[in-house]
Amino acid sequence: MRARSEIDSIAESTLTDSGTDHSDISITVVAGGNDRIESVQLALKSAGAADVVLVHDAARALTPPEVFRRVVAAVRAGAEAVVPVLPMTDTVRRAETRPAVKSDRGTAVNDGPSAPEPRPEANGRQLVVESSAESDQELPTVEVLHGDLDRSRLRRVQTPQGFTASTLRRAHDKYEEDLASSGPGAVAATDDAGLVERLGVDVVAVDGDEEALKITYPLDLVLGEHIATMRDAEETKRSAEVAGRDDTMSAASEASDKAESEQGERR
Amino acid sequence: MRARSEIDSIAESTLTDSGTDHSDISITVVAGGNDRIESVQLALKSAGAADVVLVHDAARALTPPEVFRRVVAAVRAGAEAVVPVLPMTDTVRRAETRPAVKSDRGTAVNDGPSAPEPRPEANGRQLVVESSAESDQELPTVEVLHGDLDRSRLRRVQTPQGFTASTLRRAHDKYEEDLASSGPGAVAATDDAGLVERLGVDVVAVDGDEEALKITYPLDLVLGEHIATMRDAEETKRSAEVAGRDDTMSAASEASDKAESEQGERR
Repeated sequence: MRARSEIDSIAESTLTDSGTDHSDISITVVAGGNDRIESVQLALKSAGAADVVLVHDAARALTPPEVFRRVVAAVRAGAEAVVPVLPMTDTVRRAETRPAVKSDRGTAVNDGPSAPEPRPEANGRQLVVESSAESDQELPTVEVLHGDLDRSRLRRVQTPQGFTASTLRRAHDKYEEDLASSGPGAVAATDDAGLVERLGVDVVAVDGDEEALKITYPLDLVLGEHIATMRDAEETKRSAEVAGRDDTMSAASEASDKAESEQGERR
Repeated sequence: MRARSEIDSIAESTLTDSGTDHSDISITVVAGGNDRIESVQLALKSAGAADVVLVHDAARALTPPEVFRRVVAAVRAGAEAVVPVLPMTDTVRRAETRPAVKSDRGTAVNDGPSAPEPRPEANGRQLVVESSAESDQELPTVEVLHGDLDRSRLRRVQTPQGFTASTLRRAHDKYEEDLASSGPGAVAATDDAGLVERLGVDVVAVDGDEEALKITYPLDLVLGEHIATMRDAEETKRSAEVAGRDDTMSAASEASDKAESEQGERR
């Protein structure tokens, strides 16, 4: 963790990207807030007269530039909120937590279709049969799985999420109002698309990319390093083939939001 | 693809696992059927008097032995159908396909809450704004995303799926009956847990494992190789530390189903 003063010092400076042909793009670093939503609000205040705003997860550092272009194109085509998505590849089931009871087989299982509804206080916590379960051991609760979800309708959500600036500002204003009238616990934390959906505005999908993975766990880093290595190899090969060709691909980062916004202004 | 005769020749032989301390486990290879369900039925016919049957995806070749043990333990504790699961880490949204219409912003987007219901003929196909979308271009359909799914209740399903042999046989019998009475198209393809659920039997969750990933795409192979390398390194280290200790971990495979079944018989 960096000291707050150091972050503020970085935030005060305006970086200029001089290493590429995009040297007319300026990057403003803004110190983040106490949570994700507050950070977006602080960035929005610095976005000036931008008409398209992208919000990106820095952990999706390898997002191909094409994904950013698709999101921006869809906002410019008229969508107020745009999210890149991928199909669901895993088989998904819906879980229901039930108290375990004795079955006629003499051990702890569910009592079938007549079981009570899942208790609200279970609150989504994963309650499973413990790995140490032995025959005749009591199972206080079990998680019963239902195959009633249509996987073909499920989408994995990525970033950048794109918005018309006015829609995103309205969404955050409404969030603040809801927070003020209902208190912090009553308003569920969500992403920006979720805030916009509360306005009754449609959130539209564009194609995401498997390489836009969120690097969170050690195994994700293995994939990320592989993708980066593959890209370096491709770049080297291309550079050798087309000497002097300018094809630098800038890495996706939170700074790109601002860059895309600036491009929007110059339109 | 191997020739059918070659498969049959392998199937006729009964392999004996003599490389480990489990040399009393016999492995019977059975030629598969025309689809997944038929293959399971053919294997079931060879399972003899086993009381616990596991059905495993060979593509989940790195599934840790602990996952198999958890599934078997839960079946023995009284569950008729058991599936290993992981929490949903991705943000998931539900997609609805809508015809795109002109908005008051003059470009093709949805017409908001009054839009018609998704057309049944869309049938789950992912229809998104094309990457080539430009302002004023017609968008015949768009995919609108809804954030109304409770991610905390969604589970990613893995294998091995475990069953009491009688329950799995009943589930496949019912599937054959449904097929005979309704015709092939009317009965949706599903996994074994799905067939069991149709009997009204509860499908119970146990903890899966991230290393039980399904190796399907090239990037999955990168992860698989990493996991295998890590295990080799751990094994080498352990062998050096505890010379002579017998801790061979057998790789998970479809053959393990039969092996686990055999263990069930000897109980």
